[in-house]
Amino acid sequence: MKLVCLDLEGVLVPEIWISVAEKTGIDDLRLTTRDITDYDELMRRRIEILTRNHIGLDDIRSVIATINPLPGASRFLDTLRASRQVVILSDTFVQFADSLMDQLGRPTLFCNELVVDSTGMIRRYKLRQQDGKKRAVDAFRSMGLEVTAVGDSYNDLSMIMAADHGALFRAPDRIATEFPDLPRFVEYDELLAFLLNHAKSHA
Amino acid sequence: MKLVCLDLEGVLVPEIWISVAEKTGIDDLRLTTRDITDYDELMRRRIEILTRNHIGLDDIRSVIATINPLPGASRFLDTLRASRQVVILSDTFVQFADSLMDQLGRPTLFCNELVVDSTGMIRRYKLRQQDGKKRAVDAFRSMGLEVTAVGDSYNDLSMIMAADHGALFRAPDRIATEFPDLPRFVEYDELLAFLLNHAKSHA
Repeated sequence: MKLVCLDLEGVLVPEIWISVAEKTGIDDLRLTTRDITDYDELMRRRIEILTRNHIGLDDIRSVIATINPLPGASRFLDTLRASRQVVILSDTFVQFADSLMDQLGRPTLFCNELVVDSTGMIRRYKLRQQDGKKRAVDAFRSMGLEVTAVGDSYNDLSMIMAADHGALFRAPDRIATEFPDLPRFVEYDELLAFLLNHAKSHA
Repeated sequence: MKLVCLDLEGVLVPEIWISVAEKTGIDDLRLTTRDITDYDELMRRRIEILTRNHIGLDDIRSVIATINPLPGASRFLDTLRASRQVVILSDTFVQFADSLMDQLGRPTLFCNELVVDSTGMIRRYKLRQQDGKKRAVDAFRSMGLEVTAVGDSYNDLSMIMAADHGALFRAPDRIATEFPDLPRFVEYDELLAFLLNHAKSHA
């Protein structure tokens, strides 16, 4: 039985923190792992910025409610789910992803969680586990599933390499250059054809 | 992050082989694990009966296309998926489940597969793995997920026992009597309340 594991941000929906930065006008929230490589430090900074600006979870959710999946993503996902099992593996937070998952027809999503206090302010986050995308792919393979993994960035590479088949979607040139053996796609139709017809091993 | 693992037949949809037996009029197909306890022998018999009656996969799929989910199942599943991740763990075959999954809004399904020859006749089946429901729950827990498992029959008990929380749904009295500590529900609203509010450990 075949399973496709998809990254979320950049593959099906826009980068959520960037969208929140744009829509709230708080430029500091544009920080990404390119600016602060340590994810834990990055998240502490983001939470600090939100607290300082008195932005609670509900405020962010209102902003995220105005974000839509990338053009063509829903149709791609609907078509894929008619012939393949799909699980989305993401580093985002379940509270952020909710409205986007609703728009995408409630695919299964494994991601992280935010811890919110009684006043609605975000206090900390809970990782599902370290290296959660790769470990999910390992666990799916232990279930006898043939896994194809698709992502766009460095944090997707361990899951792509752990899978039976893998591909890059809308990945930056530098990743594609470093991993020339990985199929790389830009359009949903190309990715769909790969996933449905000829998901080749990256080995 | 919380995951609910649901059995399919008896929980969300009718027993597929029984429905096929009724709709084709081939009473031999009513055989279940109650009649032939060895699953492999049972499946060999079923495939033999289909071959003898010149019934191919497309014929069965036409019959299955007329089956609907159990009354209330779609609404239950939609509501559950809005607040919980859900994966359906079933011993059925992906080719059989297809139209039912479509009616249920394409939840993620891990199950078995049929091998069909060039004339469309079913030749054999491929198990995803032995004890696949329990091993899936073990693997989900290894992903850092808090798993609640729900089923109606003996082949669900190992997954229910392996999960963090478990419940029986529309289970026969003899299973409920043997496992008096397991919560047991008959109506979707009761099960939904359990899954959303107070999924207690079965320990």
